[in-house]
Amino acid sequence: MTRCSLIVIGTELTRGIIADRHGQLVSKEMTHIGVHMAEIVAIPDDGSIISVLKALKKNNEIIIVTGGLGPTQDDMTRSCIAEVFNTTLVRDEKCFENLKRRVGAEKALGANEKQAYIPKGFEVMDNPNGTAPGFYGSDGSTYVFALPGPPREMEPMFYSFVLPKVKSLLDVKDGTRYEYTSFITAEARLEELSERYGDIDWGTRFQDYQISLYASSDDEQKVRNAISALQKELGPCRLVEGNTSALDLLITTVKEKGCHIAAAESCTGGLLSSLLTSKPGASEYFLGSVVSYDPRVKVNVLGVSEETVARFGVVSQECALEMADGARRVCSSDYAVSITGVAGPDESEGKKVGTVCFGFSSSCRESLAVTLHFSSWGRDSIRRKASVSAMLFLACYIKGEDVQKMAEEWSNI
Amino acid sequence: MTRCSLIVIGTELTRGIIADRHGQLVSKEMTHIGVHMAEIVAIPDDGSIISVLKALKKNNEIIIVTGGLGPTQDDMTRSCIAEVFNTTLVRDEKCFENLKRRVGAEKALGANEKQAYIPKGFEVMDNPNGTAPGFYGSDGSTYVFALPGPPREMEPMFYSFVLPKVKSLLDVKDGTRYEYTSFITAEARLEELSERYGDIDWGTRFQDYQISLYASSDDEQKVRNAISALQKELGPCRLVEGNTSALDLLITTVKEKGCHIAAAESCTGGLLSSLLTSKPGASEYFLGSVVSYDPRVKVNVLGVSEETVARFGVVSQECALEMADGARRVCSSDYAVSITGVAGPDESEGKKVGTVCFGFSSSCRESLAVTLHFSSWGRDSIRRKASVSAMLFLACYIKGEDVQKMAEEWSNI
Repeated sequence: MTRCSLIVIGTELTRGIIADRHGQLVSKEMTHIGVHMAEIVAIPDDGSIISVLKALKKNNEIIIVTGGLGPTQDDMTRSCIAEVFNTTLVRDEKCFENLKRRVGAEKALGANEKQAYIPKGFEVMDNPNGTAPGFYGSDGSTYVFALPGPPREMEPMFYSFVLPKVKSLLDVKDGTRYEYTSFITAEARLEELSERYGDIDWGTRFQDYQISLYASSDDEQKVRNAISALQKELGPCRLVEGNTSALDLLITTVKEKGCHIAAAESCTGGLLSSLLTSKPGASEYFLGSVVSYDPRVKVNVLGVSEETVARFGVVSQECALEMADGARRVCSSDYAVSITGVAGPDESEGKKVGTVCFGFSSSCRESLAVTLHFSSWGRDSIRRKASVSAMLFLACYIKGEDVQKMAEEWSNI
Repeated sequence: MTRCSLIVIGTELTRGIIADRHGQLVSKEMTHIGVHMAEIVAIPDDGSIISVLKALKKNNEIIIVTGGLGPTQDDMTRSCIAEVFNTTLVRDEKCFENLKRRVGAEKALGANEKQAYIPKGFEVMDNPNGTAPGFYGSDGSTYVFALPGPPREMEPMFYSFVLPKVKSLLDVKDGTRYEYTSFITAEARLEELSERYGDIDWGTRFQDYQISLYASSDDEQKVRNAISALQKELGPCRLVEGNTSALDLLITTVKEKGCHIAAAESCTGGLLSSLLTSKPGASEYFLGSVVSYDPRVKVNVLGVSEETVARFGVVSQECALEMADGARRVCSSDYAVSITGVAGPDESEGKKVGTVCFGFSSSCRESLAVTLHFSSWGRDSIRRKASVSAMLFLACYIKGEDVQKMAEEWSNI
């Protein structure tokens, strides 16, 4: 069995300031493709990588190193790997050009320049989320992969470069790999699935706003059956093919229709807007929103009637409807979505924590509102789930699908 | 400096089923008492502890081992430690009595009995939460501590036995610990500090919106001097005493004044509002905001004049001023803050990525606007830094401090 070890470099780890996040990810994926993880070693940024690397090189075919690729003096992964693998560092011109583009020609020299140096004969791994590229190479007996430490840089590079390369080295034939994304779903539910369909090889990756679900099998029909069963249980739009996000689904719909959207938020307090504007180019489709946290802002800015507030409360479908209509009117958009609910920790207007109403307004179809009841796992979670739900619902509303039915068929949210 | 390494044993770790929880705890406590953590090594339950233990014994005075003390065949920590420390296993009668009490006389024999064996000459550490006791001992050069793997067993034993024993071995007298928080500061800057004041023991913890900075020293004046020097360099309000957040600082100010706030956002797209509403009780001070992403929303909802947009552009202090005034007016708040800038990736209106204007409006003092130029490390980072800056500025504006001067004195943001 091929042996792999991981070296996680960072004085912040050995001083207990942060906990390692790479060990579990790398171990899980390596185990999944049949590689034996021999050691996960965390060490400080003090050059001790040299002795650790030498020792591990003796009985590992693959060594993955994270951290120590930055511009500061401590960051010595680059030179230590070159030393242990009997090579020298050379400036990679493509990396240097990338660096200049990222930090400017002036700052690209001096300490930063170091980041464009890689061991001679090694391959570069591009880093879309940071200045330090990664690299990999072999001395004929051991492959070493070096990746930056921050998870948001390391993780995509691990999946784009390291995992495919290791698979090709090992000639791993996954059964075909199928990728899905699930929204507003409990971890336990997906674990249950993997138990129920134990002859399919499942993998999951939990993110803040969605769960990626992987299935690996030679029997496509078996995977499709398992997925349809789960889709039926969860209800429409909560398990989709491919690796995507609720935002991506909404953006695709909005761009197809060439329409502009707006929002009115209460309990989510700006989180939905923040997500809608998180990608470059958001101004193509997003016009604006009103965070009407206080009831007077709902009335004065969005034009919700005082009677509605007095009679139904602000957490009501009636209020959600008027908020959505108001957002569409004041932002002059084609479509608008609204969210008003109880994010907790305390209930409000006699409505339970987790009760959230959504309103939808359009210039070409009737406004409507739906209510969801999230099982409460805290304020953050309710705000996140409500924002994701709003994006999924809005995409369906724009496509002319039955949002009311969709909400009714969602189970266990 | 005394060197310590931690060996965490568990196939569930090297298969990625769970993440290690002991590394951070042990490292933090050891660092705190002046012990250098050399390595944190996770390995499977397959006997590889022998070679790892032998290697670490060569250059560590303290080795802590967790896991592998249970009754199953995989659990071989006990015998491997005895082997490496040149001793044999003997049944400890007190442990055996405890075991009988816990599992019954019948079950205490067979596989379970193994748990009452400890290396000859070693001391027992009682385990109040499980069947496997821990033990520690030394061969004259290295102390080894063996603890069970489950955190609820390991953690109390670490604090009751390991930490006091190590402190007594080292004759440790803790220096006093000082805690600070820094905002919108680059990692490199804080590293520079720790180099410059190398006789103070520094620690940092990077979070999304702030950096916690710890100093441990017997000489309070020395710490205060180092901190003032850094405060002077960074400029006002960017390094404060205690563990806090920009949001906490703003909330404290707002509650002291008993005032209500509102916001107008452009490039941050709702992120500031989302932060302002992230804590329970936000409705006490936050009324609402307008995310005026599109210029027409700035004009139509916030009342920014078309002339201002045409003449100065939307990324201008003039526009920021009118946005803040507009947000205060439409939300009927006492104070309002606005943000308009270029989050990137592309420049806009000929203004560079990272240019952000902030406006402040109040019922009791003149409106004003300032501009910052963030060194660009991506859209997310600029949005985060701009939101944090807005909270810090707003707190000062409410207190009647000179925001203009504050912005001018900020260096390297």
